[in-house]
Amino acid sequence: MSRETADLTEASREAPEDEEEDLEDFALGEDYALNPEFVTMVIDAADRGDAERLRELLGALHPADVADLMGFLTADYREAVLAHLAPEALAEILSELDTEIREEVLETVAPATLAKALEELDSDDAADVVDDLEEDKKAQVLAAMPETDRAAIETSLAYEDETAGRLMQREVVAAPQFWTVGQAIDHFRREADDLPELFFDVYVVDPSYKPVGAAPVSHLLRLPRSTPLAQIMEPVTEIPVGMDQEEVAYIFDKYHLISAPVVEPGGRLVGQITVDDIVGVIHEESEEDILALAGVSDAGRNASVGDMVRSRLPWLMINTLTAAAAASVIGAFEGEIAKLVTLAVLMPIVASLGGNAGTQSLAVAVRALASKELSEVNTYRTVYREMAVGLANGVALAVVTGSVIWLIFRDGLLSLTFGLALIINLFVASLVGVLAPLVLERFGRDPAVSSSVFVTFATDFTGFFAFLGLAALILL
Amino acid sequence: MSRETADLTEASREAPEDEEEDLEDFALGEDYALNPEFVTMVIDAADRGDAERLRELLGALHPADVADLMGFLTADYREAVLAHLAPEALAEILSELDTEIREEVLETVAPATLAKALEELDSDDAADVVDDLEEDKKAQVLAAMPETDRAAIETSLAYEDETAGRLMQREVVAAPQFWTVGQAIDHFRREADDLPELFFDVYVVDPSYKPVGAAPVSHLLRLPRSTPLAQIMEPVTEIPVGMDQEEVAYIFDKYHLISAPVVEPGGRLVGQITVDDIVGVIHEESEEDILALAGVSDAGRNASVGDMVRSRLPWLMINTLTAAAAASVIGAFEGEIAKLVTLAVLMPIVASLGGNAGTQSLAVAVRALASKELSEVNTYRTVYREMAVGLANGVALAVVTGSVIWLIFRDGLLSLTFGLALIINLFVASLVGVLAPLVLERFGRDPAVSSSVFVTFATDFTGFFAFLGLAALILL
Repeated sequence: MSRETADLTEASREAPEDEEEDLEDFALGEDYALNPEFVTMVIDAADRGDAERLRELLGALHPADVADLMGFLTADYREAVLAHLAPEALAEILSELDTEIREEVLETVAPATLAKALEELDSDDAADVVDDLEEDKKAQVLAAMPETDRAAIETSLAYEDETAGRLMQREVVAAPQFWTVGQAIDHFRREADDLPELFFDVYVVDPSYKPVGAAPVSHLLRLPRSTPLAQIMEPVTEIPVGMDQEEVAYIFDKYHLISAPVVEPGGRLVGQITVDDIVGVIHEESEEDILALAGVSDAGRNASVGDMVRSRLPWLMINTLTAAAAASVIGAFEGEIAKLVTLAVLMPIVASLGGNAGTQSLAVAVRALASKELSEVNTYRTVYREMAVGLANGVALAVVTGSVIWLIFRDGLLSLTFGLALIINLFVASLVGVLAPLVLERFGRDPAVSSSVFVTFATDFTGFFAFLGLAALILL
Repeated sequence: MSRETADLTEASREAPEDEEEDLEDFALGEDYALNPEFVTMVIDAADRGDAERLRELLGALHPADVADLMGFLTADYREAVLAHLAPEALAEILSELDTEIREEVLETVAPATLAKALEELDSDDAADVVDDLEEDKKAQVLAAMPETDRAAIETSLAYEDETAGRLMQREVVAAPQFWTVGQAIDHFRREADDLPELFFDVYVVDPSYKPVGAAPVSHLLRLPRSTPLAQIMEPVTEIPVGMDQEEVAYIFDKYHLISAPVVEPGGRLVGQITVDDIVGVIHEESEEDILALAGVSDAGRNASVGDMVRSRLPWLMINTLTAAAAASVIGAFEGEIAKLVTLAVLMPIVASLGGNAGTQSLAVAVRALASKELSEVNTYRTVYREMAVGLANGVALAVVTGSVIWLIFRDGLLSLTFGLALIINLFVASLVGVLAPLVLERFGRDPAVSSSVFVTFATDFTGFFAFLGLAALILL
């Protein structure tokens, strides 16, 4: 949560002031992404083995930008760059790195160096890094850390992944109800070294350490010293330690929270979550949704080609089955197609438009579920509206395409068959598009995952069946 | 940015303490979404015309939950509920409402009431609301506001939509470089009434009001009164007033910012953006991406059926054209299909799997572009990796499906034709899936919008052409 453009290397402090500033300006493009030429400069310096230049270049970067830089380099260059990072800088960069790269980097760093680096981090960030270590190295690193830091990390790791317990930092600022503003400030000045680097709320706790309210720091600053905390505190939204991080993000977003106390089942304050952690969660969760809807299993961004194949092939296999099942419908109508090959030309259009309409409904429903705008209260109304939209779009498309088909083939019955099939398929598409995620959610599954499979199958199947079946009835 | 569970009505203050708490607990379900039974209670009270009960129910809700409630009600009930909101509560609820409902609500509220409500809001939130008013009502409302508030709103509206200028609040806390911590705190205590409700950083400015650093409020609290601000301030990331909000969100996410100063082209401090505004932006932008990828034009969530049709039909029309173009390929091979109808059965499988694989590459590329992990630096490597993944998945699927086809049809050449077509289509799918968003981005377009159209067309076209073309060469 530090906002300083840290001096990443010892050497950079000796570089002339203006040269350093020039480099900082040059490192990032207009859009705050790393300048490609800067990346080239790093690669050149690494090729030349110019350690001083490398330290200078790295010194111009914020830890988050060093992490980005790592993503743009190959493994060999990453190792070369890593060797020139000051140990203090390593910690902050580790917590910024993508999982894949972090795992790779962690293998190359000695346990003692790592232990030292981790002491610099908040407990939540340190636990994240430790969690990525292999079992035996994890033990070595933890053993090399001071008792209190180790305990904090072990406690954090005891909570399940993606819960409030893992997201929270254990460092909180709490004060008893009977304190005044002045007492609190005096206490903070005395204990300055033990306070978290940044905090936004002082949690007011009762004698059993249960939060009863929160005083925003900016209120403490402006109120007379004699004001009792109990008088200025505001109600807090307590986050149970086992709550799913997506739920936590929903609450922060809904109530515009800056920080919130995390409590144990008994109600005792055990940590806090701050909104800057939530920004990452929201990003992660929406990325997961986009990828899940597209049938990609894992969000790994710097994955190897093998990992990429593993994240996509299973869904393609499942889609093969559903596509084959839909195609079997065509097989049942081979006789009709042999009589009128035009059917084979037109049938994919019916299936394809259904697929598109289904994807539209699906995306809208998945987002509405995620933001809890779609719930028991309005399920029927939502489904009904989707059906109306499907019908309306179906009729509109049927009129347009039916007319075009008539112009081309001069066959009114063919136009009618195509138009009717389209209306049926768009109706089914809208219905399945909204029902698939709803049903998955009702059964406690992630509505974004695997919905697309159902929608694609339903629209392919219906498209082929409605068009070929109607053709058999009307045309042949 | 207020976190209080505001007393929404005058009446609720007179309700017995415990009954009120019970209602608050009951209003929200386990998942912090509105309890369906609570919504029913509101509807019942409105049906009975029981004003006191309505006030009591609304009094138990946070403004954000009242806004959610509005989304679950029909327009008639919304009007009934609205009539029982205290004017002070109206303001906060207005800034929480979805655009569609807000526009509807704004029509029913008198300009004078509205002007009074808006005075309660931060300038950015007030401007958002005013922007949704119809022209003549906008003039009436602004005329009814005090000069300073009106000026703030008009300045805010002068900035383009979705820029830092619109996102920022003009209320900032600034201090000259030569002040000490003690001077700052004394000043805040004297001017308490003029300070923003919440703030996280004191911006240190030079004599021309350019920010030169920021002192986190939690640092002011713990440092000795004699510490000069110039000594404790940290570098700030200045946000130009014209920066796109997506860019602002990227910077906040990347550097874990809590607040950032917004500056005019000359460098003068004109406002600040806080992270809680950014949470909303990230949500909005990722929702836009998901919907755009699915071919839905507008994120309007409480849109009418007519609006929903308008947001989806244009994309379906475009897809009709591309589907027809792809189908024309089939038309060119009618002779082949007439000879071997099995081709018509198998060709949609090739097209469908290509579409799926293309969607996978597309989703990954769009996310990587959004988080700037895909840039000039690694374009070639990314495209090359996608091609490798497409080829690997194509070969894997070709082996599996080719074997199954052999088992069913006992035709080695048919298996070979199908397998080769699949490999070609998956290769093209992966390539187009990553190239389409890259090219759109290069031309300054949103990579999420319309990429799917290109991908679907490319995979349908390639799927039909490769399979039928190879069949003509190999089989017939």
